[in-house]
Amino acid sequence: MRISEQTIHMKNINSKPFDTPLGFFWAAAEAGIKLANRLDLGLLNSETPCNAAAVFTQNLFCAAPVTFCREMLSAHGNNIRGVVVNSGCANAATGPDGLENARLMARMPQSTGCAMADSENFFVCSTGTIGVQLPMDRIRAGIAEASKKLAQTTEGFLDFATAIMTTDTVRKTAAASLEVEGTTVRLVACAKGSGMIHPDMATLLAYVATDAKAAPEVLDRAFRYAVDRSLNCMTVDGDTSTNDTAIILANGASGAEIAAGSEAERDFTAALTSVLQDLARQLARDGEGATKLVEILVTGAPDFLSARKVGRSIAGSNLVKTAIYGRDANWGRIVCSAGYAGVPFDVDRVRLTMGEILLFEAGGPVPFSEEDALKVLSEEKIVIHIDLGAGNEEATVWTCDLTEKYIEINGSYRT
Amino acid sequence: MRISEQTIHMKNINSKPFDTPLGFFWAAAEAGIKLANRLDLGLLNSETPCNAAAVFTQNLFCAAPVTFCREMLSAHGNNIRGVVVNSGCANAATGPDGLENARLMARMPQSTGCAMADSENFFVCSTGTIGVQLPMDRIRAGIAEASKKLAQTTEGFLDFATAIMTTDTVRKTAAASLEVEGTTVRLVACAKGSGMIHPDMATLLAYVATDAKAAPEVLDRAFRYAVDRSLNCMTVDGDTSTNDTAIILANGASGAEIAAGSEAERDFTAALTSVLQDLARQLARDGEGATKLVEILVTGAPDFLSARKVGRSIAGSNLVKTAIYGRDANWGRIVCSAGYAGVPFDVDRVRLTMGEILLFEAGGPVPFSEEDALKVLSEEKIVIHIDLGAGNEEATVWTCDLTEKYIEINGSYRT
Repeated sequence: MRISEQTIHMKNINSKPFDTPLGFFWAAAEAGIKLANRLDLGLLNSETPCNAAAVFTQNLFCAAPVTFCREMLSAHGNNIRGVVVNSGCANAATGPDGLENARLMARMPQSTGCAMADSENFFVCSTGTIGVQLPMDRIRAGIAEASKKLAQTTEGFLDFATAIMTTDTVRKTAAASLEVEGTTVRLVACAKGSGMIHPDMATLLAYVATDAKAAPEVLDRAFRYAVDRSLNCMTVDGDTSTNDTAIILANGASGAEIAAGSEAERDFTAALTSVLQDLARQLARDGEGATKLVEILVTGAPDFLSARKVGRSIAGSNLVKTAIYGRDANWGRIVCSAGYAGVPFDVDRVRLTMGEILLFEAGGPVPFSEEDALKVLSEEKIVIHIDLGAGNEEATVWTCDLTEKYIEINGSYRT
Repeated sequence: MRISEQTIHMKNINSKPFDTPLGFFWAAAEAGIKLANRLDLGLLNSETPCNAAAVFTQNLFCAAPVTFCREMLSAHGNNIRGVVVNSGCANAATGPDGLENARLMARMPQSTGCAMADSENFFVCSTGTIGVQLPMDRIRAGIAEASKKLAQTTEGFLDFATAIMTTDTVRKTAAASLEVEGTTVRLVACAKGSGMIHPDMATLLAYVATDAKAAPEVLDRAFRYAVDRSLNCMTVDGDTSTNDTAIILANGASGAEIAAGSEAERDFTAALTSVLQDLARQLARDGEGATKLVEILVTGAPDFLSARKVGRSIAGSNLVKTAIYGRDANWGRIVCSAGYAGVPFDVDRVRLTMGEILLFEAGGPVPFSEEDALKVLSEEKIVIHIDLGAGNEEATVWTCDLTEKYIEINGSYRT
């Protein structure tokens, strides 16, 4: 599916203010969970119940809030009131106490007197240090404070997006709107991830709120399609975290219905994909120690999953990532990592370009100008395009380069 | 299979001289393929025809000598006379000319007048720069020179092992002997790999020569068993090269037969595994930029492949490897990488130790002394033991730490 420029309006979030979806209220508080004087508690609350879809880490060692969210989605996925999230503590490897704390945290918007929380159906997410229990008094105080500040504003949304950051160096947000039979539907999304300081672990958290009216199965289908082509097409270092969570809430406040099988579903899915791809690029670019965003376009594949597998194999290669850091048009490392992806193709039909430079064709290297290559590789965004000559499907995968800074960040001895 | 100390005698290769297998002659020459004044051409020649077994890279982009060796093994696997190998040029991504050059190279021991080469059945291996054709005149001159120097000596073997090195910082060799019904059988092995300087690619080459008498199918079975538990249990950076090749030649010169299904087969397989595991440890320890050897023992697995999968997942984690470099007993990164290996187990039954220190048990971290952990992590060899509590099988995987030096080696701009 290609995104229709006519119907989807991507927003440049840096040009504030922009419209947040109707009926969603946002806030953040400085709860002092790990550090003082920073927003570390986010609250998202919908005026009316939402349909929800969500995807979670596949790691066997999943954190307590992931277990809790899975249960919440399964029991109340058509009646969700919001999300409460903290940074500074991941509530992972915390046993039964950790799970009980996640449950308590979900009830806090209501129990601390948040005017709009008339049910306990909140998703709970945590990111930060693992193996440590949540400081529940601070969490409670933070939620109480955030409850008072809830606002349907750009600033509220941006505060929420700030509160989920750990060692991210930039805030990641995206927004879009589309017209459904004359009615405007809005989406906003934010995410965090890729930074970590020992003993924290990487966590990817992503949230999308939309005022579209969409049945749970429509929402789930659109979300899985979009996540597959965005967050699941992004890698920093190949390590799947224990806390990864992506959630979409649809409260229907726009009145526009996304009916199953309709043109609207197609447009909505495209808009959602576009928003999440925007976040995926931002996440990859802010990978630990990264100096460059690497976009890997795989075409000529027999199917999407094969294309993505090849893209991920290239994106996962330390050798490719260090070569790009070193501004080296190292076609050998790229074709090599494509070759061990486990996807069958004929190496003599492979065509590889970096930027506009043709590097490999018909089974062998193509002479190129080192000067031109250095120019392409000096850019902040590097586009690698490999055509497998084995079909008509494609995928794009995003990653970053691998630098000494990554080693420094992750190898620095605990103090 | 456990190695029987009664029957297998591992040799400490550093305490020269040691017995090389009967009937194998070794030599090396300075052919000047890439650099002057270094051994870069190795020749191994058996007095009598050998049975052979070999395993090759699974990369779709395999180099010309790999294609050639596969054909040679299939056509003449029971009548091999030796190996000719060069460093300095990988003969990879070289098209039909490259394949023709590999064929020519195989015939050179005989055509240049080597007294012992009375057939053209030589394996051909190359390692070094890719995308460049072999300098055939130098190869020919090198083979002619080596032919004259062939000797059944420790020195000849060590020269051969030196000639295959690229940017390896140490030579990797191992040897063992065993008694088969009163007759001594000898094995020697050498390997190269893990070092690379752009635009070279990593190549793992490993050779084993034995004077055992073993039918091709027995040799193949023993070799695959051993490789699976040694070279295939080792990773530096997860990048599978285009040239990986491991070969065993058995010339039967000892007169001792390794009969299928016999006690001798069991002992021979154990000795072979032991020798190749020794090489695997040496290869991992000499990984690019490495300061430490990391040995990951996975026990309590439902089967060997599952155990190895978990071990490889831990060994492949950049986060684990940087933590070890940083002398950080980061149990979280270790259990996390085990959790996404794709092997089912109950996280509450997992037990993790590093050295003698218990780090994780019953689903949660165990308090430990930072001082003790720093002591363990300051050693040059780090042993991680994870028990999955999910069966009785086990595997050991070897890797190294990930350091700034790796980035420097692989990210240095081409000059």
